[in-house]
Amino acid sequence: MLAHVDPFHAIAISRLAHELQAQGRSVIHMEFGQPSTGAPRAAIARAHQVLDTDPMGYWESPALKARLARHYLETYNVRVEPEQFVLMCGASPALTLALSSTFSAGDRIALARPGYVAYRNTLRALHLTPVEIPCGPESRFQLTAAALAALEPAPRGVIVASPANPTGTIIAASELAAIAHVCRERNITIISDEIYHGLSYVGPAHSMLEFEPKARIVNSFSKYFSMVGWRLGWLLVPPEHQLRARAFMGNLFLTAPSLSQHAALVALDCRAELEGHVATYARNRELLLQALPRLGLTHIAPPDGAFYIYANVGHLTDNSLELCQSLLRDSGVASAPGIDFDPVEGHRYLRLSFAVSTAEVEDAIGRMTPWFARRR
Amino acid sequence: MLAHVDPFHAIAISRLAHELQAQGRSVIHMEFGQPSTGAPRAAIARAHQVLDTDPMGYWESPALKARLARHYLETYNVRVEPEQFVLMCGASPALTLALSSTFSAGDRIALARPGYVAYRNTLRALHLTPVEIPCGPESRFQLTAAALAALEPAPRGVIVASPANPTGTIIAASELAAIAHVCRERNITIISDEIYHGLSYVGPAHSMLEFEPKARIVNSFSKYFSMVGWRLGWLLVPPEHQLRARAFMGNLFLTAPSLSQHAALVALDCRAELEGHVATYARNRELLLQALPRLGLTHIAPPDGAFYIYANVGHLTDNSLELCQSLLRDSGVASAPGIDFDPVEGHRYLRLSFAVSTAEVEDAIGRMTPWFARRR
Repeated sequence: MLAHVDPFHAIAISRLAHELQAQGRSVIHMEFGQPSTGAPRAAIARAHQVLDTDPMGYWESPALKARLARHYLETYNVRVEPEQFVLMCGASPALTLALSSTFSAGDRIALARPGYVAYRNTLRALHLTPVEIPCGPESRFQLTAAALAALEPAPRGVIVASPANPTGTIIAASELAAIAHVCRERNITIISDEIYHGLSYVGPAHSMLEFEPKARIVNSFSKYFSMVGWRLGWLLVPPEHQLRARAFMGNLFLTAPSLSQHAALVALDCRAELEGHVATYARNRELLLQALPRLGLTHIAPPDGAFYIYANVGHLTDNSLELCQSLLRDSGVASAPGIDFDPVEGHRYLRLSFAVSTAEVEDAIGRMTPWFARRR
Repeated sequence: MLAHVDPFHAIAISRLAHELQAQGRSVIHMEFGQPSTGAPRAAIARAHQVLDTDPMGYWESPALKARLARHYLETYNVRVEPEQFVLMCGASPALTLALSSTFSAGDRIALARPGYVAYRNTLRALHLTPVEIPCGPESRFQLTAAALAALEPAPRGVIVASPANPTGTIIAASELAAIAHVCRERNITIISDEIYHGLSYVGPAHSMLEFEPKARIVNSFSKYFSMVGWRLGWLLVPPEHQLRARAFMGNLFLTAPSLSQHAALVALDCRAELEGHVATYARNRELLLQALPRLGLTHIAPPDGAFYIYANVGHLTDNSLELCQSLLRDSGVASAPGIDFDPVEGHRYLRLSFAVSTAEVEDAIGRMTPWFARRR
């Protein structure tokens, strides 16, 4: 049987947004989670150098893997070896690599609902079975150790995401430790998507690696490091999984972009510039948290991190895709419909990305205020 | 059951080569199929421009897809729409996308043996069943329509590669047409790997698309266009498969590197520079074809295209990995053992890549001559 894979509905919204722009309309792009700030200046300068000096063959940068190992020591106080890193063309293929190299066809993999759309689709594409755990406001839209302990039979794996997409919620250290404990007891392999690390507004997020050395960690340079189109991510695997992960990498993907590896090595030391972006997101988040209740959007997930607001619009619609389309057509504010993240409850939610400038957030609030007022 | 995936043995050879270099030894790298020439000058110039002007978000270049459509019209006289192209981080993920979006778990997929190592490994990783068809000197190491017609039961798909890796052999237009005919009759979906197109020494290679519009075509900018580390390839799918392929792309991979897309658009118009590389490979090929018989290597596959010589060393060894290691240690010439390409007969073969400079090929011949003379 062919695997069933859904497209992203946010892409349809984005296409409409670009059509409207082509007609001369002003659009604020809050439908995708991508920084518009570009790579750090020093990383770009390094790319200029390398372009003129390196013919760029198939390559995995030993220096970048060593620097990432230091990053884990400094950030999480966790000691890993450079060879535990597999450099990938972004977090999406890193997740594909983690799942395909770890699990067997038919394995049941637990994940939170709502969650990033690609989790359940990639699981299905790889002939794995997603086991979605409904996570509502009572658990801050996040997986809990209790929910994992209650799942019968035990799944073979679990995808954990903190900060999460679409909600931005962060799992507390104590709960991560409890999840790791349940997974050890029940022999569940953890895939931890930590792509939004560095973007948190309530204290730093903890890595699952602090609690479970056998976890596979997915991350990338696309979010905190603002290097979206450079397509560079990593999979961090335990030493005993290294050869197998690397064999899958060589066959299914080969290598990551060379220039991006050179630039990323520099980006890891551009903290001042990158923290400036985080400060912008923090202001944007504050503005939205103040404004949204005035628009009648009072049920929102706590945006501890990432750059998303996941808001309940169930008092206005049973079809958030239609609502997103109307909001875009009428006001020029593009957002993502909840159905991308939750096939069951998502028709009553929308996601706004605030990875834009503060001026754009202020403009968006100004446009949304009368639009939502008309619907109260 | 976990999928069985082999590592590349050529990587072990390459690691040894770099160790020897670190000890001060001179090594000629003929173990991997990668041009050392770098991207065309105008493509690099374009990259410099874009680095300073484009923040590079998630992106698929409409201009590049349109230009590729024109490329197919000009090169093969085949009309395709820009939307039939899915831009990928290289040919390896393009193959992974083609296989995962087209077939169901357990499907039997035919392929030639010898063949590129990733074919059988990627098939296994995606829970598909490789059906290897032994292809010896009598069929120029290539699949034939007759062999496909004789396969019982009919496979669900077939991977065709022309020019092939490791042999460089090209399938004639008449045979491609016959293969397409058999596949239509038997309902076999064709995946055609055309990554070595542009590199041929006996007249141009034909695209499977000239004979079968439903074929999925894999290609990249890594070989003819000399943009290895830029990690940009494409999958060309029939219109009816477009939405499904794109949904898989969005979930499993997301997007291809933005800078590489900008540069590749320019590279498509750098024919004079690129044909210079082909002229170098043609000289290298001639030199090797003259020299190898003198070394006792008289059974070699006809290298119609690509930049490989696949030579039988069965008169010297039953363990080509050991022979490659000895040749490297003694003479500094790195090659790839046949076991990467053929688990049954490959222990009696080695592959030499001549995607190096002519001076390096001359040097390599000078080093190999006494080495092989001692073994006669």
